[in-house]
Amino acid sequence: MSQTRGPFFVGKDIEWETTADGVRRQILAVGTDLMLVRVDFEAGAVGAVHHHPHRQATYVAAGTFDVTMGLESQRVTVGDSFTAPADVPHGVKAIEAGTLIDCFTPVREDFLARNR
Amino acid sequence: MSQTRGPFFVGKDIEWETTADGVRRQILAVGTDLMLVRVDFEAGAVGAVHHHPHRQATYVAAGTFDVTMGLESQRVTVGDSFTAPADVPHGVKAIEAGTLIDCFTPVREDFLARNR
Repeated sequence: MSQTRGPFFVGKDIEWETTADGVRRQILAVGTDLMLVRVDFEAGAVGAVHHHPHRQATYVAAGTFDVTMGLESQRVTVGDSFTAPADVPHGVKAIEAGTLIDCFTPVREDFLARNR
Repeated sequence: MSQTRGPFFVGKDIEWETTADGVRRQILAVGTDLMLVRVDFEAGAVGAVHHHPHRQATYVAAGTFDVTMGLESQRVTVGDSFTAPADVPHGVKAIEAGTLIDCFTPVREDFLARNR
């Protein structure tokens, strides 16, 4: 996937990558300093706790998730959102099937490297 | 709305602001360098062409839109996304009712100022 595409990114044309059992990911819009990533979860699927220096903000587009952010946990559903500050460990569990839209700054070059 | 909230932002608790005929907006997650904003459009509603120095990436969460980005235009629908580079004029028209999730870096302090 090239970073020179855009400004429009057609979802149905973008490949999916399986990242864990019941979890698959699409790299959506990539621009200067910003990247959007869609992550779809089957019911019960887990996004394991991890951390990264990138700042992240996530919109719950579908489903219900239990989210752990540092020492806090909360159940979130469609229309809710959360932030993941730099280097704060975070993870999710899908209580029902759903979709998260992750936004990162800076761009997750590590994601792009896997697709080159 | 305070920037000190978070990391969780409950959508149903966030006020809506009408920004144009048939257009209303919620400020969602606000973190360091990142802001998520939800904009709901009635069918036919217009987000007038505008520009800003903030970089923007937008996910189409519902509906269908005609998007103008600089000299390019494209029809987008659920699952599509686009970037708005700094200072590039952009606007949207909702072909059917829908929802856009805008992500900005840096934070749109101008949006927050209206809600303080």
